[in-house]
Amino acid sequence: MTGFFISIEGGEGAGKSTQIRHMESALRSAGHDVLFTREPGGTPEAEKIRNLLVHRDGGNWSPLEECMLLFTARSSHIRHVIQPALAAGKVVISDRFSDSTYAYQGYGHGLPLDVIKQIEEISVGNFKPDLTIILDIPVTEGLARSKARLKNESSAEDRFERIDFNFHERLRQYFIEIALDQSSRCFLFDASKTEAELANGILSLVLKRISG
Amino acid sequence: MTGFFISIEGGEGAGKSTQIRHMESALRSAGHDVLFTREPGGTPEAEKIRNLLVHRDGGNWSPLEECMLLFTARSSHIRHVIQPALAAGKVVISDRFSDSTYAYQGYGHGLPLDVIKQIEEISVGNFKPDLTIILDIPVTEGLARSKARLKNESSAEDRFERIDFNFHERLRQYFIEIALDQSSRCFLFDASKTEAELANGILSLVLKRISG
Repeated sequence: MTGFFISIEGGEGAGKSTQIRHMESALRSAGHDVLFTREPGGTPEAEKIRNLLVHRDGGNWSPLEECMLLFTARSSHIRHVIQPALAAGKVVISDRFSDSTYAYQGYGHGLPLDVIKQIEEISVGNFKPDLTIILDIPVTEGLARSKARLKNESSAEDRFERIDFNFHERLRQYFIEIALDQSSRCFLFDASKTEAELANGILSLVLKRISG
Repeated sequence: MTGFFISIEGGEGAGKSTQIRHMESALRSAGHDVLFTREPGGTPEAEKIRNLLVHRDGGNWSPLEECMLLFTARSSHIRHVIQPALAAGKVVISDRFSDSTYAYQGYGHGLPLDVIKQIEEISVGNFKPDLTIILDIPVTEGLARSKARLKNESSAEDRFERIDFNFHERLRQYFIEIALDQSSRCFLFDASKTEAELANGILSLVLKRISG
């Protein structure tokens, strides 16, 4: 018995968390043993690296340093959590995985892709998800959704002052390109659809791929 | 005006801290602007990585993950501290540098040297000290000195239970080999000599190399 590893990726406001909940619940109902995890993070060690990266006082890291920290965390995540779960036959769902590093540090912050590829090969070899679900949404629409959702949170104003539209356009570009380039692993879904339509489309693909 | 970068390396009980104090003080007396720093650490970011590595609750890292964390910290250290100081004409003395990673993660924990070399090239390029002072002492003698020094500290017993003699022999082997292999950069000093003899020997070499 061997497991199945799904990563889910997508831009700001694409509805990733909602779709993960739907997928997780539907897979459990279908009798699968599901492990949900996230990146950066997923192990106590990797969560410490996450804290270095996501907190504002975490420091002044270069994109290269961020990339090295992310793949160090990913190595820990794979060794301690993902591989053991797959070996036990589980379906593992990770909120973000390596593609986010290519998108954010590469397309977003300009770190050359061949440098990311070298760091990936050294740290995690050729370990990739069996299936990557990408939620695609036009940047303006995604940002508007996020803004609406966060409008009552105290950090919202502050957060949106820092949003760089072109940065998000570059992230989206990466995900569109990887879906074309690695079309047997990566599937792009139109996240402008209704929540239920999107959930059904994703579940149908996931069930077909797991069984087949 | 360009600075000069010295790293100092050596095994347990070799007297590194004492010799650094002598060197720092003698160089200041000779009119040099000296910056003392240490690894892992040297920047707020790198000190956070140090905390992940040196504390017992820091986590269960593989030698590869440790190596990536160390070179990430080193990249930060070089960019924010060492290079600016060298550009300002200072003599920089670092307590440990890249050689410690080759010794500990490579010779000590068995990470292949070509993997360390790849991580080094990606993260810091060919950045090396201008001069590396290695304090060499037979392992039994060094451990005996450390034990005597730490005998009144609460953690001493505990610490020495964990000492692995063969591990320290492998570290020493690395430093002996690198001194032969990179003889224009690395100098081995016999740390069994008296404190004053050793300090004079080191200072004489350092002054010659700085001026030359």
